[in-house]
Amino acid sequence: MATDRNARLVEWLEDAFAMEQEAETLLKAMGGRIEHYPDLKARIEQHVVETQGQMQELEGCLEALGGSKPTLKAAAGSVMASMHAMGNAMMNDEVAKGVGISYAFEQMEIATYRALAIAARRAGQESIAERCLAIQAQEEAMANWLYDAQPQIITAFLDREAAEMDAKR
Amino acid sequence: MATDRNARLVEWLEDAFAMEQEAETLLKAMGGRIEHYPDLKARIEQHVVETQGQMQELEGCLEALGGSKPTLKAAAGSVMASMHAMGNAMMNDEVAKGVGISYAFEQMEIATYRALAIAARRAGQESIAERCLAIQAQEEAMANWLYDAQPQIITAFLDREAAEMDAKR
Repeated sequence: MATDRNARLVEWLEDAFAMEQEAETLLKAMGGRIEHYPDLKARIEQHVVETQGQMQELEGCLEALGGSKPTLKAAAGSVMASMHAMGNAMMNDEVAKGVGISYAFEQMEIATYRALAIAARRAGQESIAERCLAIQAQEEAMANWLYDAQPQIITAFLDREAAEMDAKR
Repeated sequence: MATDRNARLVEWLEDAFAMEQEAETLLKAMGGRIEHYPDLKARIEQHVVETQGQMQELEGCLEALGGSKPTLKAAAGSVMASMHAMGNAMMNDEVAKGVGISYAFEQMEIATYRALAIAARRAGQESIAERCLAIQAQEEAMANWLYDAQPQIITAFLDREAAEMDAKR
């Protein structure tokens, strides 16, 4: 069982798991729909695999603390993510908005793992802190990739639109 | 009237206006509720004023392009932001989550103004590009402030919670 000292850490790990389930749903929806931006599609598909690994890591952390598999929150998160993905799909500039939204989502994840590492260290759970910081590094790599790729994607979107080519995805 | 060449730029300026209205609602709700984190409260209140100035800038850009004041989208954004703010208020770790959410929101704004500046330059609207980059610099300053302040806020939150003091806001 989780001790009081670990209660906040367990709650934040469960929240992170729900967040990653939402990320997986969003990324899969976005990656699956992209047609004309192959580098973006490939990087998103790579990050879907990373995200699945992160969820396993979080489960491992929760098991180490005697917590249970988080399922309920995750289910709610997944419904929200599906609605987000549908909303994005309706935009006539889906890929342009999608880059901004997924970049912001990565930044939310970075903030989440920074907070988790602090909470883990305070609870004396150094190995959990290390695992959170390793996940944070993956999120930073994805955020940096999106930031660096954004000007090129926006330019390609505007070029395609100006040429009356299918630009949306 | 906006020309075809400006149509995408006008649409993105209107989207940015709606985003800033949502930001204003979120920031006001968050800032107004914080009790025990005075530096964060002060920085958020400063950014509310900056956000209001940004909305005026966006209106000026739209007027320069012959567009109308964006109202409908903004109203919908405001309802969404109110729901977000209510959701956040129900969290027992409101301030900890709020820092991450507002940091991610700033990053979304940064991505938005980067895209806008590219679209403005392509439309030959250099002065609108400059105004967007000036707003982007304000968003970056806010994002950096939140990033730098986060460890201290998380630590203060965990300290207060451990001492059974009111930590939530």
